[in-house]
Amino acid sequence: MTEKVALIGSGNWGSAVAKIVGGNVHNFEHFDKEVKMWVYEEQIDGKNLTEIINTKHENVKYLPGIKLPENVVACPDLIKTCEDATMLVFVVPHQFVSGICKQLKGKIPSNCKAISLIKGIDVQDNAEGFRLITDMIQESLGIQACMLSGANIADEVAEGRFCETTIGYRNKKDGELFRDIFHTPFFRVSIIEDVVGVELCGALKNIIAIGGGLVDGLKMGANTKAAIIRIGLYEMRKFAKMFYKDIKDETFFESCGVADLVTTCAGGRNRKVAEAHVTTGKSFDQLEQEMLNGQKLQGTSTAKDMYGILSKKGLCEEFPLMTTIYRICYEDVPPKRIVEDI
Amino acid sequence: MTEKVALIGSGNWGSAVAKIVGGNVHNFEHFDKEVKMWVYEEQIDGKNLTEIINTKHENVKYLPGIKLPENVVACPDLIKTCEDATMLVFVVPHQFVSGICKQLKGKIPSNCKAISLIKGIDVQDNAEGFRLITDMIQESLGIQACMLSGANIADEVAEGRFCETTIGYRNKKDGELFRDIFHTPFFRVSIIEDVVGVELCGALKNIIAIGGGLVDGLKMGANTKAAIIRIGLYEMRKFAKMFYKDIKDETFFESCGVADLVTTCAGGRNRKVAEAHVTTGKSFDQLEQEMLNGQKLQGTSTAKDMYGILSKKGLCEEFPLMTTIYRICYEDVPPKRIVEDI
Repeated sequence: MTEKVALIGSGNWGSAVAKIVGGNVHNFEHFDKEVKMWVYEEQIDGKNLTEIINTKHENVKYLPGIKLPENVVACPDLIKTCEDATMLVFVVPHQFVSGICKQLKGKIPSNCKAISLIKGIDVQDNAEGFRLITDMIQESLGIQACMLSGANIADEVAEGRFCETTIGYRNKKDGELFRDIFHTPFFRVSIIEDVVGVELCGALKNIIAIGGGLVDGLKMGANTKAAIIRIGLYEMRKFAKMFYKDIKDETFFESCGVADLVTTCAGGRNRKVAEAHVTTGKSFDQLEQEMLNGQKLQGTSTAKDMYGILSKKGLCEEFPLMTTIYRICYEDVPPKRIVEDI
Repeated sequence: MTEKVALIGSGNWGSAVAKIVGGNVHNFEHFDKEVKMWVYEEQIDGKNLTEIINTKHENVKYLPGIKLPENVVACPDLIKTCEDATMLVFVVPHQFVSGICKQLKGKIPSNCKAISLIKGIDVQDNAEGFRLITDMIQESLGIQACMLSGANIADEVAEGRFCETTIGYRNKKDGELFRDIFHTPFFRVSIIEDVVGVELCGALKNIIAIGGGLVDGLKMGANTKAAIIRIGLYEMRKFAKMFYKDIKDETFFESCGVADLVTTCAGGRNRKVAEAHVTTGKSFDQLEQEMLNGQKLQGTSTAKDMYGILSKKGLCEEFPLMTTIYRICYEDVPPKRIVEDI
């Protein structure tokens, strides 16, 4: 049976992934060689972004300087991108997933499966207080969804620098199929039967990165930074296990767990803005506008979402690090409380 | 029953620990208030180091600028330091342990227990190919030994910056007693029933730090660095579990595991020298002399010890990261092989 991949999304990470997937489909007989990529149409110097991508083979706006394989075909129409696909790769900001799924419902082949590359959770009024992106995809489209997450800063992946990533699966065959389209010698994929664990790691680590940036700003040194990372990993695991029973400890030893947390706390925009919050005294809102060039600060909003869940359930004391980070971001608590309140 | 603590060692880490222990014994009724500290006598500007410590209450040579509590009493005589102690804290370079134990044999109270703060292993011609420091202490003195290890750069601990550490114990009561003398709000102690796991983390992480320094020198970016840390943690755990059956996964989530590894790969002399090896092309031996001011580079020698064990047992392929690091250090293999051979 031939599989056909569609990429839903074409931002910085989506484009980096397009380079890998477009190359990998040539390595296997069972993949259609065309990879359609849905692009939210924009005008760049009077030209359509899709047209530029399909002629220059470069996403000049979101991943400039990196050639995309010619078999990656940009398409401005979501339905046309996906209607003949058997493998959907979701790589869009998480607030767009619901609308995309509504449009795709009933328009995709019945043997379709999906993978989410989206790091985030969706706050909901359900029993848990949130919904996973993979669950949204599964429920609205009636298909199974895997999750890919790891220490994967997009530009470094696009440049072919060595790194690892993790795919969580429910159905091993799906996990292996998605590994085929992502794995390269410089983008090493491990698969593990734990979709939710992989997904929660990707969502929660941005909160801890705020903590890492705060202790950097406070110049507290390497021991303190390592302690924040360790406590963060502990709280991420504790949270995952409290809400889902099949979470594996092993997941936190994978790239999606410890490695992504380490990268995010070493570089990344959340860390950087939190450090600036300490050194300049400016608010996170103001710094987001000044420093991020239109990108959103995920760590603070995820901290707020998590705090909403934890406080509703009376769990704040059991998650002192995440709670304190929320309070520093939103309640004017002084940054140094990060080591006093945990 | 009153416990009495003796510190065996007074270097940088020993002195930082003396500050904590000297303070903590005042918080509990069951500790004798005097803490003797064995100092290998040296002359500093014509004065005995012990005399300087006992008058200025500062180890001017190994931890300058930090006041030690007045109840910490420096003593140049090992036997006199320990003969009335019930809790021995070993904090000396690992090559001195055997000689110290020989001198102490039969001279310490029968209810004595020990803790090792020494990060290293001792290569031996036994079945495993090495001996743990805690085993050396236990066997030669006939007493039980705990192990303390964590993300604990000595100067930062001495300055009272927040961090964590881990005590591995065999006997919970001993673990709790040692926690009493070490735990403070800024030096948080967790205890876990896994002496060997804690000890192996402390010994092996220096090898991985060489790997971290190599990828820093190669300017491979944050993803790659995080991958090296993750694979390093994986190989440390795999090695520990291969040689000892009661190792706990949980230990690697503690400060002695992931946190110490992160700190050591972020700062520390092993990382620094390995980075310089790449950027200058000089040998590790030469850089050790030029950069370390007489200190030893533990990562390379531990890599050599480990490689000896792995190669004798035909396990090199199962530990590709540690093996490649050894080869880069000792066999002129180019540093970029660190991501090609793993």
